[in-house]
Amino acid sequence: MLTSPANPKIKQIRKLRDRKTRSETGLFYMEGLRIVGEAFEQGIQMEYLVVAPDLLVSSYGQELANLQQTQGVPVLEVSADTFNSFALKDGPQGIGAVARQRWASLPKTRPAHGQLWIALDSVADPGNLGTILRTSDAVGAQGVILLDQCTDPYDPSAARASMGALFSQKLIKTSFAEFSAWKKQVALPLLGTSGGSDQDYHTFVYPDPCIVLMGSERQGLLPQHLALCDAVLRIPMTGRSDSLNLAVATAVVLYEIYNHRRDKEKRL
Amino acid sequence: MLTSPANPKIKQIRKLRDRKTRSETGLFYMEGLRIVGEAFEQGIQMEYLVVAPDLLVSSYGQELANLQQTQGVPVLEVSADTFNSFALKDGPQGIGAVARQRWASLPKTRPAHGQLWIALDSVADPGNLGTILRTSDAVGAQGVILLDQCTDPYDPSAARASMGALFSQKLIKTSFAEFSAWKKQVALPLLGTSGGSDQDYHTFVYPDPCIVLMGSERQGLLPQHLALCDAVLRIPMTGRSDSLNLAVATAVVLYEIYNHRRDKEKRL
Repeated sequence: MLTSPANPKIKQIRKLRDRKTRSETGLFYMEGLRIVGEAFEQGIQMEYLVVAPDLLVSSYGQELANLQQTQGVPVLEVSADTFNSFALKDGPQGIGAVARQRWASLPKTRPAHGQLWIALDSVADPGNLGTILRTSDAVGAQGVILLDQCTDPYDPSAARASMGALFSQKLIKTSFAEFSAWKKQVALPLLGTSGGSDQDYHTFVYPDPCIVLMGSERQGLLPQHLALCDAVLRIPMTGRSDSLNLAVATAVVLYEIYNHRRDKEKRL
Repeated sequence: MLTSPANPKIKQIRKLRDRKTRSETGLFYMEGLRIVGEAFEQGIQMEYLVVAPDLLVSSYGQELANLQQTQGVPVLEVSADTFNSFALKDGPQGIGAVARQRWASLPKTRPAHGQLWIALDSVADPGNLGTILRTSDAVGAQGVILLDQCTDPYDPSAARASMGALFSQKLIKTSFAEFSAWKKQVALPLLGTSGGSDQDYHTFVYPDPCIVLMGSERQGLLPQHLALCDAVLRIPMTGRSDSLNLAVATAVVLYEIYNHRRDKEKRL
């Protein structure tokens, strides 16, 4: 059993907290029974598991580690103290994994009928991004296209907030310029939101397929984003606030589209 | 100008991070131009302001401090270093306030036609609570009833996430037993949500007024909560997730009610 925090693999786990390391290596670290189990079920390519036998009381967790080992994934056993030294949260469950990030390609993406995509510009908060992935999964959307300066979905906070949707949703990273060219090429309707629009999001007739574009927490969509949109929708608000939380606003629009599609199916 | 971090008022600001101190004193500390401005506009009773002239570059902030002083609110001037020593976040704007918490009384509350309330059981995350307040304000709901072990809306993270809705929304704190007795007395329809229900939240005919009851992040509504509900609604989900983020789920239901009411008004 490994007890030295100077071991290169242990040091790598710690370094993977930094976006720069994640970006350079194409790897990420996840922790906890639920997320490691989800990653396994969704076929995420594991580099190695790290297990603290003294902390891993769950038999499901032990089976998971055994199964991975059978499939050739190295399982690193560490002491409870060592695990606690790099754990993402207090009271860890004693199982973690370093795995390969999975990204889809924008040029190869051709949204078909019934599909729904979300594009996000410059989202800053990993928790918001993870929550959007979770909602996106819930309404059966295909995935999220991250433009320019978006936060990293493989940030531990984003991964945790996504509740496993990080692995079921397609993730695409691109620039606004490339996205813009692609959108025109595939002729896909792009829907933005803005408090300044006259088009109520609830009475709008949603095209199928479509992409919902959301802006940053601080600024929303910028003029160049709005200019690319085929329609700009307003989510009405009656209170004192002039905006909603980003993950909430995204969910409100996604569920409206989901409900419209469900209504339509019922009518057919 | 005050530079000693041992000053009792400065010590109090630091202590107000603890829920216990907030609960014992009935006070809370808020920080930043936007929230202090909102609190002022909404008539929140200020105990004292704390200002770091070297950090407070905004003329709006300076006017705000002057105006409060004219109205008899003490304004404590501190050095930038002192302000940074208790500031809630990095790069503070140099204005904060200690103010009195405002709570509404459940027995005196009699929801009228057109009203909408949210009741929350054992919500753990202050960010979720703040986001729910923000959405509640946006759909024109009256306020939030916090049952049993709910987190504190006057926690700095909840206050920040509420974006000022903390002051426009009515806040009520009570036990489930008292809430239950009150609900029966005022004969108000209570709507819960559960993945196990057959009633789609989108096709439900919402009573007016009504209360939406949401459970904790981990457990959702417990059997005793569901038993008190007049209807239990299901938010459909097609993906792998079996639940939504709590603030998202609440928003999805609140916007559905808001849209139903708007549709009805249009038909009249």
